[in-house]
Amino acid sequence: MTIWYGGDYNPEQWPRDVWDSDVQLMQRGGISLATVAVFSWARLEPRPGEYDFGWLDDVLDTLHAGGIRVDLATATASPPPWLAKRHPETLPVTEDGVRLAVGSRQQYCPSSPVYREHARRLVERMVERYADHPALELWHVNNEYGCHVSRCYCDVSAAAFRTWLEARYGSIEELNRAWGTAFWSQRYDAFDEIEPPRAAPTFRNPTQLLDFDRFSSDELTACYDAEVEVIRPASDVPITTNFMGFFKPVDYWKWAPKVDVVSDDTYPDPADPNSAAYAAMVRDLMRSLGDGAPWLLMEQSPSAVNWRTRNAPKAPGMMRAWSYQAVARGADGVLFFQWRQSEAGSEKFHSGMVPHGGTDTRVWREIEALGAELQRLSGDQVGLEGSRVPAQVAIAMDWDSWWAIEQPASPTNVSYLEVLFAWHRALSSLGVTVDFVRAEADLSGYRLVVAPAHFVATDAQVENLAAFARAGGTLVAGFGTAITDEHLHIRLGGYLGAPLREALGIRIEEFAPPAAPDLRATGEGEAPPVPITGEVLGGDALGATWAEFVRLDDAEAVSTFTDGALAGWPAITRRASDGGTGWYVATLPEPDALARLAAAILEDAGIARPDPVGTGGALEVVRRGEYVVIINHGGDEAELTLAGTDLLSGSNAPGLVLPPQGVAIVATDTDG
Amino acid sequence: MTIWYGGDYNPEQWPRDVWDSDVQLMQRGGISLATVAVFSWARLEPRPGEYDFGWLDDVLDTLHAGGIRVDLATATASPPPWLAKRHPETLPVTEDGVRLAVGSRQQYCPSSPVYREHARRLVERMVERYADHPALELWHVNNEYGCHVSRCYCDVSAAAFRTWLEARYGSIEELNRAWGTAFWSQRYDAFDEIEPPRAAPTFRNPTQLLDFDRFSSDELTACYDAEVEVIRPASDVPITTNFMGFFKPVDYWKWAPKVDVVSDDTYPDPADPNSAAYAAMVRDLMRSLGDGAPWLLMEQSPSAVNWRTRNAPKAPGMMRAWSYQAVARGADGVLFFQWRQSEAGSEKFHSGMVPHGGTDTRVWREIEALGAELQRLSGDQVGLEGSRVPAQVAIAMDWDSWWAIEQPASPTNVSYLEVLFAWHRALSSLGVTVDFVRAEADLSGYRLVVAPAHFVATDAQVENLAAFARAGGTLVAGFGTAITDEHLHIRLGGYLGAPLREALGIRIEEFAPPAAPDLRATGEGEAPPVPITGEVLGGDALGATWAEFVRLDDAEAVSTFTDGALAGWPAITRRASDGGTGWYVATLPEPDALARLAAAILEDAGIARPDPVGTGGALEVVRRGEYVVIINHGGDEAELTLAGTDLLSGSNAPGLVLPPQGVAIVATDTDG
Amino acid sequence: MTIWYGGDYNPEQWPRDVWDSDVQLMQRGGISLATVAVFSWARLEPRPGEYDFGWLDDVLDTLHAGGIRVDLATATASPPPWLAKRHPETLPVTEDGVRLAVGSRQQYCPSSPVYREHARRLVERMVERYADHPALELWHVNNEYGCHVSRCYCDVSAAAFRTWLEARYGSIEELNRAWGTAFWSQRYDAFDEIEPPRAAPTFRNPTQLLDFDRFSSDELTACYDAEVEVIRPASDVPITTNFMGFFKPVDYWKWAPKVDVVSDDTYPDPADPNSAAYAAMVRDLMRSLGDGAPWLLMEQSPSAVNWRTRNAPKAPGMMRAWSYQAVARGADGVLFFQWRQSEAGSEKFHSGMVPHGGTDTRVWREIEALGAELQRLSGDQVGLEGSRVPAQVAIAMDWDSWWAIEQPASPTNVSYLEVLFAWHRALSSLGVTVDFVRAEADLSGYRLVVAPAHFVATDAQVENLAAFARAGGTLVAGFGTAITDEHLHIRLGGYLGAPLREALGIRIEEFAPPAAPDLRATGEGEAPPVPITGEVLGGDALGATWAEFVRLDDAEAVSTFTDGALAGWPAITRRASDGGTGWYVATLPEPDALARLAAAILEDAGIARPDPVGTGGALEVVRRGEYVVIINHGGDEAELTLAGTDLLSGSNAPGLVLPPQGVAIVATDTDG
Repeated sequence: MTIWYGGDYNPEQWPRDVWDSDVQLMQRGGISLATVAVFSWARLEPRPGEYDFGWLDDVLDTLHAGGIRVDLATATASPPPWLAKRHPETLPVTEDGVRLAVGSRQQYCPSSPVYREHARRLVERMVERYADHPALELWHVNNEYGCHVSRCYCDVSAAAFRTWLEARYGSIEELNRAWGTAFWSQRYDAFDEIEPPRAAPTFRNPTQLLDFDRFSSDELTACYDAEVEVIRPASDVPITTNFMGFFKPVDYWKWAPKVDVVSDDTYPDPADPNSAAYAAMVRDLMRSLGDGAPWLLMEQSPSAVNWRTRNAPKAPGMMRAWSYQAVARGADGVLFFQWRQSEAGSEKFHSGMVPHGGTDTRVWREIEALGAELQRLSGDQVGLEGSRVPAQVAIAMDWDSWWAIEQPASPTNVSYLEVLFAWHRALSSLGVTVDFVRAEADLSGYRLVVAPAHFVATDAQVENLAAFARAGGTLVAGFGTAITDEHLHIRLGGYLGAPLREALGIRIEEFAPPAAPDLRATGEGEAPPVPITGEVLGGDALGATWAEFVRLDDAEAVSTFTDGALAGWPAITRRASDGGTGWYVATLPEPDALARLAAAILEDAGIARPDPVGTGGALEVVRRGEYVVIINHGGDEAELTLAGTDLLSGSNAPGLVLPPQGVAIVATDTDG
Repeated sequence: MTIWYGGDYNPEQWPRDVWDSDVQLMQRGGISLATVAVFSWARLEPRPGEYDFGWLDDVLDTLHAGGIRVDLATATASPPPWLAKRHPETLPVTEDGVRLAVGSRQQYCPSSPVYREHARRLVERMVERYADHPALELWHVNNEYGCHVSRCYCDVSAAAFRTWLEARYGSIEELNRAWGTAFWSQRYDAFDEIEPPRAAPTFRNPTQLLDFDRFSSDELTACYDAEVEVIRPASDVPITTNFMGFFKPVDYWKWAPKVDVVSDDTYPDPADPNSAAYAAMVRDLMRSLGDGAPWLLMEQSPSAVNWRTRNAPKAPGMMRAWSYQAVARGADGVLFFQWRQSEAGSEKFHSGMVPHGGTDTRVWREIEALGAELQRLSGDQVGLEGSRVPAQVAIAMDWDSWWAIEQPASPTNVSYLEVLFAWHRALSSLGVTVDFVRAEADLSGYRLVVAPAHFVATDAQVENLAAFARAGGTLVAGFGTAITDEHLHIRLGGYLGAPLREALGIRIEEFAPPAAPDLRATGEGEAPPVPITGEVLGGDALGATWAEFVRLDDAEAVSTFTDGALAGWPAITRRASDGGTGWYVATLPEPDALARLAAAILEDAGIARPDPVGTGGALEVVRRGEYVVIINHGGDEAELTLAGTDLLSGSNAPGLVLPPQGVAIVATDTDG
Repeated sequence: MTIWYGGDYNPEQWPRDVWDSDVQLMQRGGISLATVAVFSWARLEPRPGEYDFGWLDDVLDTLHAGGIRVDLATATASPPPWLAKRHPETLPVTEDGVRLAVGSRQQYCPSSPVYREHARRLVERMVERYADHPALELWHVNNEYGCHVSRCYCDVSAAAFRTWLEARYGSIEELNRAWGTAFWSQRYDAFDEIEPPRAAPTFRNPTQLLDFDRFSSDELTACYDAEVEVIRPASDVPITTNFMGFFKPVDYWKWAPKVDVVSDDTYPDPADPNSAAYAAMVRDLMRSLGDGAPWLLMEQSPSAVNWRTRNAPKAPGMMRAWSYQAVARGADGVLFFQWRQSEAGSEKFHSGMVPHGGTDTRVWREIEALGAELQRLSGDQVGLEGSRVPAQVAIAMDWDSWWAIEQPASPTNVSYLEVLFAWHRALSSLGVTVDFVRAEADLSGYRLVVAPAHFVATDAQVENLAAFARAGGTLVAGFGTAITDEHLHIRLGGYLGAPLREALGIRIEEFAPPAAPDLRATGEGEAPPVPITGEVLGGDALGATWAEFVRLDDAEAVSTFTDGALAGWPAITRRASDGGTGWYVATLPEPDALARLAAAILEDAGIARPDPVGTGGALEVVRRGEYVVIINHGGDEAELTLAGTDLLSGSNAPGLVLPPQGVAIVATDTDG
C-alpha cells in the first residue's frame, strides 16, 4: 500500500529526449503514478481508423522501466478535428443555437451516437493493446466529463431527450401532468413536439428544465458506461473517471457507484481566504460519494492556475497543507495537473510540477519535499492509507434541489452551494467531521442530519428525514427544503410535506425574501440583511438570502425576526418529542451566529465536540483512522496541546509549533 | 353598477372537484368577475382543427351558477406546441437571428399570417359558442400583447416591414429622403433591399429603427384588430385587451381607441419605496388613454410576484391601499392574477388570491376583507364607479419620443420614463392630479401642459404646443423636446422648431450633457450632477441627465448653471407674453428642487393647490367624483383634518387616524 | 507649403443650393482641404454597373472654383445595400455565427473576393474620371479600415485563413508544431480541418487566435493594396488611408510603409482629464509610423461626438489646444469630421464645423479663428510644417504583444495600452519627447529604450534589445516582456530569452499577479495593489497589475516588494555593465512613483531633462523644428519663463500668461 503521488503526464508535448530525464526527475520527486494519454486521441488516431500507438508504447515502457505506475486515460476526452470535419453534427450546440467549433477541447455532443461509436472504437484498441501492460494501475475513462459541454441543444440531443422522456413518463399525458403544461398553453400532443429548453420568449417550463438537467447528467454518465462496457470484460484493473468537486451539471450520486475508486479534480483559489474551508467540504463530498472509501485527489495545481481572470500562485507551504487536507479527509493519493508545465497551448500558464524555470524553483522544491514525505508515510506500518474517517453528522445534498432552487422564477436567488458551505463550515469550525448523504439514504449511523435548501424532495425523502427525527435523531431543516416534489409540484398546505411538518411542528405561510428596491424591476440590487435575535445565536444577529412567515403548530420559536412585517415571527424553531428533535431555520444566519447555532444543536443532539488541540493559528482538525491531522491555515503560528506524537516531525505533539501552512499528523496517546 | 372584483381563473390547472369549492370561495370573497381561458388554446384545440370545449362550457356554467360574471379570453395568447411543430416559421426570431423555441409562452411572430389565421379560426369557435353565454360580461382579446415578443426579425416580418414601408412612403426615393440614407452609403434602390434592423456592424439607421418600432407596434395592434373583426359582428359584449402600464414596445395612444374599456396589468415592486408614486403615474395614464373614462385594473398581484430576481411580498395592507389608489384614479374594478396560486409551472411562486397555504393565511384574509368592503362601496348610492377624475394639468407623453430619445448615438443616455416620472411625481406630491395627453390633442381644457423630453415632434405638435401658450396656457418644455421632426430630421436653427422657439423665447446652441471620464471611451461611468441655482428652485440645487447652452432671444433666465463652461448660462427660462407663459427647463432638477419649481409654475399658471388634508404620514390625495381619496403610504400614522365623512369607517374625517397603508374615502362637506 | 485645414465634406446630404454657400463659408473659415465621397458608393453606383458621377463632378468643380483642394475618397468604405441583396455572402459573420445585416455601414467581409472586385471596379471608375482633376490633392483609400468589422468568421474568411496559414507554415506538421496542437488533442491532419477561432467550448488555441489576428490585419491591408494597385499606375497624387490611433485590430507597423502620408482619426473624450496626455501618445505613434515624417490629423471632432454613452462638448479653447498638440507632435494638417453637422442619420449628433445652430455659435467662431491663425502660421517663412520632432527616447510597441497579452488564459488581465500609456505619460510629464519603435528596428539613434509588456518577442527582437544595452544604451524591460516567441512558445528557463536575461542580469521564477478572493472562481474582483519600496520611487509606493518572483543573477535590486510571500523580492532591478545599462520593472508603479522612476532612469542614461518653461498651469512642452510648443491643459493660468518670442501672440514669451487651453509657439532665443 502506498499514498499515490504524481500527476498528468503529457510527454507528446515534448521531444523524445525529454522523456528519459522526466522519469529520472520523477524518481527524484517520489512520483509513483502518472496519468497518461488524457488528450492523445488526435495523436493516437491521426485519421479515421488509422492508429499510431508506437509512441504510447514507448511512454508506458519508459515509465514502467522507471518504476512509475500508470493511470491510463482512454483518450476520448477531446475528439480530433477530423471528427468534426467529417461529422459536423457531432459538434455541440448552445441554447441559442450556436454550433461550437473545433480549436479548444471537448467539442462533442454527449448524445451523439457518432461520437460514442468513435470513442468506443478507440477504447477497444486501447484495451486490446494495454490491458495487460505491467505498468497499468488504473483506467482513467475520458476526462472531466461535462467540464465545458454538459448541455447540448442540438437536434440529436433533442431526439435523445424525447426518448429519455418517453422512457421516464410512458405517455404524453403523464408528461403533461408532471410538467404542469395546463398552464401557459404548453400541452404537448405528442413527444415529437417537445424541444430541449432552447432560448424561448420567457421563463421555460421548470420541470422541462429540471428534466433536461437530469437527462444531460444521464447522457454524460451513459458516455462513461459505454466505455466501461468495453474495458470491464477485458481487464481487472480498477476504473475511475475524475470528478470535479461540487460540479453542478452532473449528479455524482448516480455516477459514483459506477467507479471503482472516486477521484477528484479541485482547484481552490489561493487568493481566497475561504478556499481551505471550501476545499474541506469538497473532500468530504468525495469521501461520501464512495460511501467512506478512500479516494484519489486526481488533480490539483502545484501553484497557480491560468483560467481565472487573475491567477495567484500558492503561498509557500500551501500546496503541502492542502495536500494533507485531502489525505486527512480520506484521500489515498495526491496528484497534480500536470507534470511538466506546457511550453505552448491554452494551459501554458497553468503551473506544473516542473515549472518553466526548471528545478531551481520553489515549486519543484516543494514538490520534491512532499514526495519524500509521503513515501515515508506510506505503508502498513503507518496505516494511514486505506483507513476511514468517522462522522456522526451528515448534510443532505441533492443535485435535483441544486438545479431547481437556482432556476429563475423562484422566490429569490439562492446559491445552493453557499448555503451548503455555510452549514459545512459552521460545523467543521467546531471540529466536527461531516459526511454528505442523500436524503433517502439509511441515516441510522448519524446522530445529526442537516437538510438545508433541499428544495426538491420525493415522498420517500420527506418520510425518511421525518422518520430519522422520530427515531431519536436530531434533524435540522433549512429554508427552501421540501418546497416541491420530484416534478416540482408544490407541497401544498404549508410546504415541507405532512411528515416533515409534523416532525418540525411548523408550516410555512408565505415567503418573504429580503429584496432591494428597483424601479425598473430588474431586481438586481443587493438584498438587505434580515435582523434576527435569539439566545441560540448569542443574541442579535443578521440573516441573509431568505426569510418567511413560519406558523408554529407544535414547536417553540428559539429565534425570531425583529424587523418590518416579520417582526416577532419565528426565525428558528425547535420541536422536541419522545423520539428525536426537529429544528427549522428560516434564514441563513451570518457565519458567527450560525456557528453558535450549530454548537447549540450539537449539544442538543448529545454530540461531544472534540477538545481543542492547540492554541493560536487557525487549525483544521480531522481524525482519520488512528491519527488526528492538524493543519494551520492561519497567518500566525499555533502551538499544539494534544497529547501524542507527530508523524511528520517525529516530535511530541504538545508544545510543537505549527507555522502558517504547517501540518502535524498526531498518533494520539488515547483513543480518539 | 358595481366595482368589479376578481381575477384570472385557470381551473384547467386543477382537478374538477376543486372547481365547485372555487365558486363557493369566490362568493365568500366577494368576487364578481373571473377572467377565463387566457392560456387555454392547447387545451381547447389539442390538435389542429380538433376542439374540446366541453370543459370550458362546464367552467362558464359553474361560474354562472355561482353568480360570477366572466371576462372571457380568446385564448390566443400562446399557441400550442403543435403550431410550431407544423409551422416552424411562426416562431419569432431575435435581432441576432435566434429562432425562439416552444416551452414558455407567446412564441409567435406577430406578423405571421399562419399564426393570425389559426388565431382567427379559434376566435370564430369561441364567439360561435360563447357569444350568448349568460355569464359573459367582457371579451378579453389575447393577453398582454407583446409582453415577451414585441419585435420579430424573421423573414416573414421583414416582408411585412417592407409592405408597411411601401404604404408609408409610396416610393423608395421618399424613404431614402426620410431615412437620410445619403449618409453612410445607405441608399436603397428598391424596397426589397431593406431589412429589419437586424444585428449590424454598428449603429443602425435611426429612422429605420424608429419605423421598425412603429411597424412592430402596428403589427401587434393588427393582431388585435383581426380578432375584433371576428367578435364585433357577432357580439354586443364590450371588448378589451389588457395593457401593461408604460409599456415601451406598443403605442397605446394608437391602440386605446379600439378597446371598449381600457384595462391594465401593473405589478409595482413592494420592495421599492417609489412604487406607490410610480403606480399613481400608471393609473393616470390608463385613465388618460380612455379619455377620462373609467378603466379596469385587470391584473395586480395579491402579494409577491415571481419574476423579479428577489420577490418581496406586499406588506400588510399594501394590497388594499394600492387597490384603492387605482379606484381613486379612475378604475371601476380591481382584479388579480390569479385566483388560486399554481401548483406547478413558471408562475407557481407568483402569489394567488388563494395561496398555497389555503385560506388560513394573511393573504386570503386581506382578499376577503377587501371584497366585502368593495361590495359595500358599490352601487349608485355611493356613485364612486363611473365617476370622473378632474385635472387641470397635463403631461405630454409620446411613444415616438420614447423610442427615439433612448436610441444609441444620441447626445447622452436618457431614460424617458425617469424624466416623465420626475415631473409626474413633483406635481402629484403637491396634490395636483395630472392627465397624460398627446401633444397634438385639444389642450384647451388644461391650464398647464408640461412637455418633457418630447424628442420627436411633428410640425402640428410643435404648433399645437406653441398655440396653447399663445392662447393663454402655461407651457413647460423640458430638455430634449422637439429636437427632431417625425423622420428624426433635426429641427435646425436652434432645435424646438420656430413656433416653440418663439413661444419660449429661446434657442439651443449646443448640448452639454454631464459625462464622466473614461479612457477607453465606453462612457459607462456615472454622469456627475450639474450644479444650478435659482429662486424657483429654492437656491442652489443639482441637475441630472442633461445640460445645454441655451440662448435667450426673448426670455428671462430664472435659474442658471453655476459650474464649468456652462457657468452663468440659463438652466431654466421663462417668457411671459400677452397670451400665455412659456417655461423651458434645460436639465432635470433633483426631486425637492423640481417640486419647488413645479409649485412656482403652478402659482404662475394660477392653479390653486388643494389645502392639506391631514398631518403626518405620507399622504396621496386624489379627488374622484364627489370624493377625496386619501392613502397613507408612509411608515407613520397620519391624522386627517379634511372636513367630511369617511365612507370606509363611517367616521368623521377630522381627527381620523390613518395607520400606514390606511385609506379614507371622504365625502367632503364642501364642493372640491 | 501650408498647414492643411478642413474636414470631411458630404454635400450629398444637402440640397444643391447649400453647396455654394458651403464654399463661401469654407473660404471664410480658412479651409484648404476637403475630404469628399467617403460614403458615396450607393450614390455613385445606384445599381450594379450603373454609375452617376455628375453630382460628384459638380462637387469637385465647385470646390476647385472656390480654391479648396480635395482629398478624394475611393468611396469603398461602405457598400450599397444592393451588394448584400445580390451577394449575401459578402456580409460579415461574428464568431457566434451571426451574419450582420445592412443598415449601418462597413458591412463587408474583408476577405470577400466579391466585395474586393466590386470595390476595384468602382476605384477604376474614380481614377479614370478624377485622376487628372485639378482639385485633387490626395487619394483617400476607403475609410477607417476595420473600424466596425475587423474580424470575420464566415466560410469565405475561413478558406482565406487556411490559404494564409498554408503560405505561412508550408506544411500541416509545421503548423501543428507552432500551434502546440499536441496539447488538448488539437492535431490537424490537413489544412481543411482548420476553422477560424469561432465560438468553442472553452479557451481556443492561443496561437490560432494570434494567427487569426495577424491574418485579419493582413486581409484589411490587402483590401487597401488592391485599391492602390488600381490608383498608383494612373496617378501621381499621394495616397493615404486614415488610421485610428492605437487601433488594436490592425498592425499599423506593417501598413504604414504602404501609405504616402500617415493620417489619423482620433477622438479623445473631452470629459476625461487624461485625454490630452493620451492624445499626445497617439500623435507620437503617428509620427513614428511614418518614421518621423509629417503626418495629417485627418479627423477630429469640432466639439462633441455622438457614439459614447454620454458625449461632452469640447470646452472653449480645447479644440484649438488639441489641434496645436497634433501640429507640435508632427502633424502638417488639422482636419475634422465633418464640415456641416448632419440633419439626419446615425451621426447627426456628432458635432460639425458648421453646427445645427449655424454660424452664430461658439463652435463656428472657434473653427473660423483657428483657420485664420493657421493661415498666418503657414508658409516657408515660419517653416513649422515639414519640420521634424527630435527624440532620444523610444518605447517599443508591438501589435503581436498587444494581441497576445490580452488573450484569456494568461497569468492575469493586462491592458497593454494602459501599460504603454503609463510609461509614455511618465516620460512626457518630464518634458521628454518619446518615439515608438519596433523592437527589431535600428535603435542606435536613441539613448533610452523602454520595452513594457512586450510579450511576444522574436529571437531577433530579443537580441536587438539586448544588443542595444550591450552597445551602451539604457534598456528598460517591463514585466510581461519576452515571455514567448512569435509562436507563443514560452521562453523557458526564466522567460525573457537568454540574451535579455544576460543584459538584465535576472531571470523570472514565477508570476504572482495580485488577485482578489472569489469563491466562485470567476476572478472578477478588483486586483489589490502591491506595496513596493525603493529610493528610485521616492520611498514606499504601490504597484498595480503584475508582480512576480525575480531572481538576481547579475543585477542589484533597487526596489523590493514589501508584502506577503513577495516581501523582500526584487521589484525593480538594475544592471550596469561596461556597455550599457539594463533595468527591469516587475510591476506597474503608480503614476507619481513611475514618474520618479523615469526621472532616475533618464539621469542614469545621461539624458538631460529640459528646463521648466513656465510656472503654474499644466504645461505640455514639445520641440518641433525651431520652435517649442507650449500648451496649458490645466485649469489655472500659467506664466511662461522661456526666453523667446511667441509666434501666435507676437509677444515676448517670458511673462506671457497662458490661460487654460492656451497655446504658445515659441521661437527660442538659443538653440534647443
